[in-house]
Amino acid sequence: MTDLTAHMLELGRRARAAAQGLRDAPAAARTRALDLLAEKLKAAEAPILAANAKDVEAARANGMTEAMIDRLALSPARIAGMAEAVATIAAVADPLGVETERWTPANGLDIARVRTPIGVLGVIYESRPNVTADAAALCIRSGNAAILRCGSDCLQSSLAIAALVAEALAEAGLPADAVQLVDTPDRDAVGLMLAGLDGAIDLLIPRGGKSLVARVQADAKTAVLSHLEGLNHTYLHEAADLDVARAVAVNAKMRRVSVCGATETLLVDRAGAQRLLPAVAADLIAAGCELRGDDEARALVSEMKPADDADWTTEYLAPILSVRVVDDLDAAADHIARYGSGHTEAIITTDAGAAERFASKVDSAIVLINASTQFADGGEFGFGGEIGISTARLHARGPVGAEQLTTYKYVVRGQGQIRP
Amino acid sequence: MTDLTAHMLELGRRARAAAQGLRDAPAAARTRALDLLAEKLKAAEAPILAANAKDVEAARANGMTEAMIDRLALSPARIAGMAEAVATIAAVADPLGVETERWTPANGLDIARVRTPIGVLGVIYESRPNVTADAAALCIRSGNAAILRCGSDCLQSSLAIAALVAEALAEAGLPADAVQLVDTPDRDAVGLMLAGLDGAIDLLIPRGGKSLVARVQADAKTAVLSHLEGLNHTYLHEAADLDVARAVAVNAKMRRVSVCGATETLLVDRAGAQRLLPAVAADLIAAGCELRGDDEARALVSEMKPADDADWTTEYLAPILSVRVVDDLDAAADHIARYGSGHTEAIITTDAGAAERFASKVDSAIVLINASTQFADGGEFGFGGEIGISTARLHARGPVGAEQLTTYKYVVRGQGQIRP
Repeated sequence: MTDLTAHMLELGRRARAAAQGLRDAPAAARTRALDLLAEKLKAAEAPILAANAKDVEAARANGMTEAMIDRLALSPARIAGMAEAVATIAAVADPLGVETERWTPANGLDIARVRTPIGVLGVIYESRPNVTADAAALCIRSGNAAILRCGSDCLQSSLAIAALVAEALAEAGLPADAVQLVDTPDRDAVGLMLAGLDGAIDLLIPRGGKSLVARVQADAKTAVLSHLEGLNHTYLHEAADLDVARAVAVNAKMRRVSVCGATETLLVDRAGAQRLLPAVAADLIAAGCELRGDDEARALVSEMKPADDADWTTEYLAPILSVRVVDDLDAAADHIARYGSGHTEAIITTDAGAAERFASKVDSAIVLINASTQFADGGEFGFGGEIGISTARLHARGPVGAEQLTTYKYVVRGQGQIRP
Repeated sequence: MTDLTAHMLELGRRARAAAQGLRDAPAAARTRALDLLAEKLKAAEAPILAANAKDVEAARANGMTEAMIDRLALSPARIAGMAEAVATIAAVADPLGVETERWTPANGLDIARVRTPIGVLGVIYESRPNVTADAAALCIRSGNAAILRCGSDCLQSSLAIAALVAEALAEAGLPADAVQLVDTPDRDAVGLMLAGLDGAIDLLIPRGGKSLVARVQADAKTAVLSHLEGLNHTYLHEAADLDVARAVAVNAKMRRVSVCGATETLLVDRAGAQRLLPAVAADLIAAGCELRGDDEARALVSEMKPADDADWTTEYLAPILSVRVVDDLDAAADHIARYGSGHTEAIITTDAGAAERFASKVDSAIVLINASTQFADGGEFGFGGEIGISTARLHARGPVGAEQLTTYKYVVRGQGQIRP
């Protein structure tokens, strides 16, 4: 066994042991740890910035692009934002021990379904130091122990933040090992985490770009919570309000083009295309968006380039939108079922019946009626933050906050019942 | 590609296509299909018995043991029981479309969490023809398409039952392909299902003995819902009522020794051992149970054989019980955390505080207070039936009925909200 293997297995054993203490502690202790962490982040601005400066300097020396360095670099405002995010998660109701259902079947037993943590989470992310604080906070709130593996480029910043997490845990009377950061840049550590650290990891969460997620999905020997693509659709129903269609379509595509909730394809009912599409397209073009349409769409908007089959399956994550005219709601739903990634879809309509039919027929994790797909976000859902968005059909779907990081158990109260 | 591969992939494509029709149909159509199936099973007693006679004859010729033949053989009473089980599932509330939560965050969106099916289930089982009807019924109730693979020894019986399922689906206006039985005894079909049929299977459910489950868990390329062992504990707290302890301990071990909810280890508080253990042990011995204890337990019960370390980790599924004296509730919980399989545990006590502490501290899928571990069963939980019991920490834990075979999506209703 290599030194690295032994070291990582030891992290796993410590996480497993700490998980029980974190789970059994009262909600107030987890809240206290989060409040302390928010305070400590603010108070430690200088040492965090100093550690971050080392990461940035090394990254520059290694030729990192300025766009990547912008993700990596911290500032007083960004550290304040990190503290604010932790405080928001501290204010979310503790999900543990909550009864989600309770009933009594014919045998007279009193059966309750109660939330309990998943156990030990392995979080693998890139060079964004704020994820260290965010992921730690969501794990503490949900009672899950965590092994965090950051991109090697942000190791110094993350070590500074992780030290504060350990202090906050210990001062709140919780096991300091409940959140551990992998303290080596050795890339083999990721492979060991994917193998599950001898059963110590219950769930892996990759947070980052497509290549990271694809690798984790392909190689993980344990369960993975993730989505690969947000190939999202906004559908303008023939009864769409024009002002709503214009405002929502532009926001859904252009608010931030690089997020997983961005719309990638606009579908328009043939019966409404002449009324809706020219104005919506003009707004998108004015906002700097390139449009690629089918023949019918292009007949209505001369600036549109032709779309080919690859456009229906491309998550641009860029100011480009594919546009297709469809027969009706069923055709829109069929297009989404065929080309979508099951992440987030929206319908714009004033017809309440059509809206509900779309919501029922389209089986993505999130279906929006008359609102922007960019609301696909745990913060916007009121979860206080999110560790990601899941397109899996098992366990959590959609934005994953603290509550979605839990499972449940049954507590059954009897008076001596035996089974006949 | 072999003929078998092509055939199995075609089953997968049909299941995927049928899944949407089953999901989008109204609850009344699924209920109608189940009512029809119950009627058809009763009406088709003669052809089912004739098909079953062929299976039994072939099994006898192949030298199958009488115990196995007893599982395989049907009778008019068993067919009536199968119809009754389907009727019970028909009477369970349809879980689809049910809103499990609904709230409005600060952005004013109306967000609902709604139950939706998982998709396509692959159910792999042994030579028990009744599972064909049971599994089909739970899949129909939960809106999941299913590919059923029975043990080759019960293929004729299962084909007869599956034909009735297809008729019932079609007569209720549902896709007949929503439940398909693999119609070949070729054992390579199982390997193809484990590989997921080109993404057509969302969840595999092995139903059977340990070797089947272990193979599916080891080789499946898709998610698996299962448990390998029910290494369950009954813990007699020092404040246990003696009569309750006697009745529950005997029932928990001896009602049926071969079920996954059977107790395999009895833990007794040292402070209560003298008062409780001799009487409980005498009842167990009178019921035909062999006891294997640690030194302290043997000092109180002379008939007890010595237990060794392997006894704490053995799921006997036989009239044998290991017995250990523990310091207190914490020691009992530690023993369970170390040796248990996370399935089902019970505490017997008159101390309500101790009971709740045990329920909180022990993190198995089911924790019972003053009741027999043999209640670990979807029927007893009021689920109308079960496809199995899950010890996984993700998705469903505990007994899995129709509701537990669903996931959810979010339906978000807005009035044109765009994200700032």
